[in-house]
Amino acid sequence: MAPVAMAYGRVCVGLLLGRAAPCLRALRVLSGMTVSQGTRDYNPKQMAIREKVFNTIIGCFKRHGAETIDTPVFELKETLTGKYGEDSKLIYDLKDQGGELLSLRYDLTVPFARYLAMNKITNIKRYHIAKVYRRDNPAMTRGRYREFYQCDFDIAGQYDPMIPDAECLKIVYEILSELDLGDFRIKVNDRRILDGMFAMCGVPDEKFRTICSTVDKLDKASWEDVKNEMVKEKGLSEGVADQIGEYVSMQGGMDLAERLLQDPKLSQSKQACAGLADMKQLFSYLQLFQVTDKVLFDLSLARGLDYYTGVIYEAVLSQMIQAPVVAEQNGALPGDEASVSVGSVAGGGRYDGLVGMFDPKGKKVPCVGVSIGIERIFSIMEQKAEVKKVRTTETQVLVASAQKNLLEERLKLTTELWNAGIKAEVLYKKNPKLLTQLQHCEETGIPLVAILGEQELKDGVVKLRKVASREEVDVPREELVEELKRRTSKLP
Amino acid sequence: MAPVAMAYGRVCVGLLLGRAAPCLRALRVLSGMTVSQGTRDYNPKQMAIREKVFNTIIGCFKRHGAETIDTPVFELKETLTGKYGEDSKLIYDLKDQGGELLSLRYDLTVPFARYLAMNKITNIKRYHIAKVYRRDNPAMTRGRYREFYQCDFDIAGQYDPMIPDAECLKIVYEILSELDLGDFRIKVNDRRILDGMFAMCGVPDEKFRTICSTVDKLDKASWEDVKNEMVKEKGLSEGVADQIGEYVSMQGGMDLAERLLQDPKLSQSKQACAGLADMKQLFSYLQLFQVTDKVLFDLSLARGLDYYTGVIYEAVLSQMIQAPVVAEQNGALPGDEASVSVGSVAGGGRYDGLVGMFDPKGKKVPCVGVSIGIERIFSIMEQKAEVKKVRTTETQVLVASAQKNLLEERLKLTTELWNAGIKAEVLYKKNPKLLTQLQHCEETGIPLVAILGEQELKDGVVKLRKVASREEVDVPREELVEELKRRTSKLP
Repeated sequence: MAPVAMAYGRVCVGLLLGRAAPCLRALRVLSGMTVSQGTRDYNPKQMAIREKVFNTIIGCFKRHGAETIDTPVFELKETLTGKYGEDSKLIYDLKDQGGELLSLRYDLTVPFARYLAMNKITNIKRYHIAKVYRRDNPAMTRGRYREFYQCDFDIAGQYDPMIPDAECLKIVYEILSELDLGDFRIKVNDRRILDGMFAMCGVPDEKFRTICSTVDKLDKASWEDVKNEMVKEKGLSEGVADQIGEYVSMQGGMDLAERLLQDPKLSQSKQACAGLADMKQLFSYLQLFQVTDKVLFDLSLARGLDYYTGVIYEAVLSQMIQAPVVAEQNGALPGDEASVSVGSVAGGGRYDGLVGMFDPKGKKVPCVGVSIGIERIFSIMEQKAEVKKVRTTETQVLVASAQKNLLEERLKLTTELWNAGIKAEVLYKKNPKLLTQLQHCEETGIPLVAILGEQELKDGVVKLRKVASREEVDVPREELVEELKRRTSKLP
Repeated sequence: MAPVAMAYGRVCVGLLLGRAAPCLRALRVLSGMTVSQGTRDYNPKQMAIREKVFNTIIGCFKRHGAETIDTPVFELKETLTGKYGEDSKLIYDLKDQGGELLSLRYDLTVPFARYLAMNKITNIKRYHIAKVYRRDNPAMTRGRYREFYQCDFDIAGQYDPMIPDAECLKIVYEILSELDLGDFRIKVNDRRILDGMFAMCGVPDEKFRTICSTVDKLDKASWEDVKNEMVKEKGLSEGVADQIGEYVSMQGGMDLAERLLQDPKLSQSKQACAGLADMKQLFSYLQLFQVTDKVLFDLSLARGLDYYTGVIYEAVLSQMIQAPVVAEQNGALPGDEASVSVGSVAGGGRYDGLVGMFDPKGKKVPCVGVSIGIERIFSIMEQKAEVKKVRTTETQVLVASAQKNLLEERLKLTTELWNAGIKAEVLYKKNPKLLTQLQHCEETGIPLVAILGEQELKDGVVKLRKVASREEVDVPREELVEELKRRTSKLP
């Protein structure tokens, strides 16, 4: 591998559209010096942004009284079997090296349901932030990461209808507002309304789920394309498809739920009526939670996963960002979905049957939850944060010296600062130049320097310098720790 | 699967020594309702303890000015190849589902070296906290977890000798002190001293690493057993083994390094002298860092991994805990190593050659680092923390009602509290009993209750109750948020 190829090795993954494959092969020669396809490292600046985003999200989850749990990164293969429908082909399996058959977790919801059943837990409000794994075919779904974070919040338990569901939406609202990502909408619908609507329009029972998947494409495809799939691929009559078309174009709030309860067709479906009555109830709680300005009852929202049984929702950012650049910086493949639109950043719903699939007696535990899709939020935050200015350490003071032969004094003082809980650094050189030490502060954003010099040592003082203003003041050696404690307690 | 078997399903893994296998098979029948062997879930109480431990460790890393990075959970198989010697057989491979050959990371050090080489980074001080994976054979190594956390701190870069090395030891000292795990010792040695000693005792060059592995067993085995292995399995003469035996019984501080520099045999080895001179230098910095009271120069310390090139160290807790109980609670297999002694809780050393293995020109980046083994620390902390008293949420106020039909008022008030950043909960029942609400506070440790009642609504007040003392006071409705902000700012 020639060093020149190395130099642009990373860049070409992102930039040479259509030539990614040979380029990846070239990288491969470097005996394992790259990451695997669809994964990425987080550098210190990305980690600083990630920490900020996580703190906001975890802060919200804690404000709502949630506990947290953790589960292993791999589960027994059978735990995941039969939970994801067609998407099962995207599950990563581990090699059979003797012993159990294992798979990497595909989401956090199935491990949560397994955890509840295994420990016989019937009610809990928990969050779980962890990475999940999907062998997405880059040629098909275009560069979603294969390893990505999910931030899940779920409420399990038998409660009065729609109160926990409304809290999940409140949480999405709070998090997206606090992260300050621009305007957003939270679309809600209900699987029972969709199913009732399908039944009343004349869709055969066995086609509910597959027609649901087709409707789910409406956020990316036109009605013509969706109708085409319904008629030509899924075998609905044009009349049936057109009736569905009328419904899925409807959007509104509590008023729409009320109107549809009077709809001659829908009102004949018990399921649809149950869903619509709950939707009214949901909106009444959302009003109390002061979030109705961003919530939209949208009959075209379907969600892909099989396990939802009631309310479903999805949050979408209005802002379109110049995603290709960000995606490439992160090592995503060209043609990334994010380059089209930011799209959905959170989704979830009610799944009352999943825990029962793990219980020997089929005992159900009703659950509702939401998953925040953090990768897209990272990309936006990275664009917003002028990345150059993001600090990657929290160091408050650099202990520096103005002359040679002061290493011992520097280490002694640094020790005092560490022992007092002050975040301090010292350069690992016996005789660093003062300029080098000051440059280190400028580059990494350290706000204060404690400078030791021969004269200062004689006088029993330390020169304390503010990096930004270059102000200097002599502080008696024995007062330095207290003075620094005072000053650093005011730092961000 | 009968429910009765379920009921003791978890327990039997830990308790029925020698009968674990059939018991595990019985669990297997539950169609994926258990976790895979050697892994475990963390429940909310364990997570609360884990968060506390991580905060201490991360706080220390940040105090020393470290940045953080993250890498994918799997690497290209070739990245890990040839880095772990005999332990390579413990690496988890992913199934070949078409595409690249992947393996789960075995530690955080090799991915760190890959990251440095790939991004051409020549100096960084970073920490990385993440799970690593080892297919330990339970029959052999007795129940170490197969998925476990490592907390790594490393300093990469060309610096003046022993300053970064000393800071790593300072960090171990600070963390173990702050976690308050009882007395501990940090043993240090140097690969060059070991190699020089082997050479001078007459061990053939090609046997250095294998004899090193044998010496490494001295913390668990007697000298007789170790000598036996050297002579009978590794083919050393008894005379050579006895010479080694004399050295590896030596322990001390800087004085020992000075004495050995005069040792007629060792002083003939250039390598050993370099290591001993550095050891003296190291101790002089450790004195400035005020940590020599716990650090011991110990010639029997060898460390297993191949990639160390200089200073090596290992921290050991003096305290012997009743580990079997804890280990079983955590789902570890019987006969867990922890049941013998707590043993090592941190280890590391200098590895100046590893980054060069990933660079096309073999360009080296000197590194030194330490890895904190968190699982054992968790076990001890779990025992120490009277687990029943550990809070798993941070909720400050429960919004409760004294009579029926006050759900709307409760939700409205809760919304106000959330919007003001106060951590608040409300029960998801339309008409919960006051007693039920107060019991929820007692059980989960919520310190305050805001009680709404018909009389209070009429009077425009809310009854604020301290759960612990049962003190109650009426607060005007419009002053409640401010009053709660005042009170909760004082809460831990």
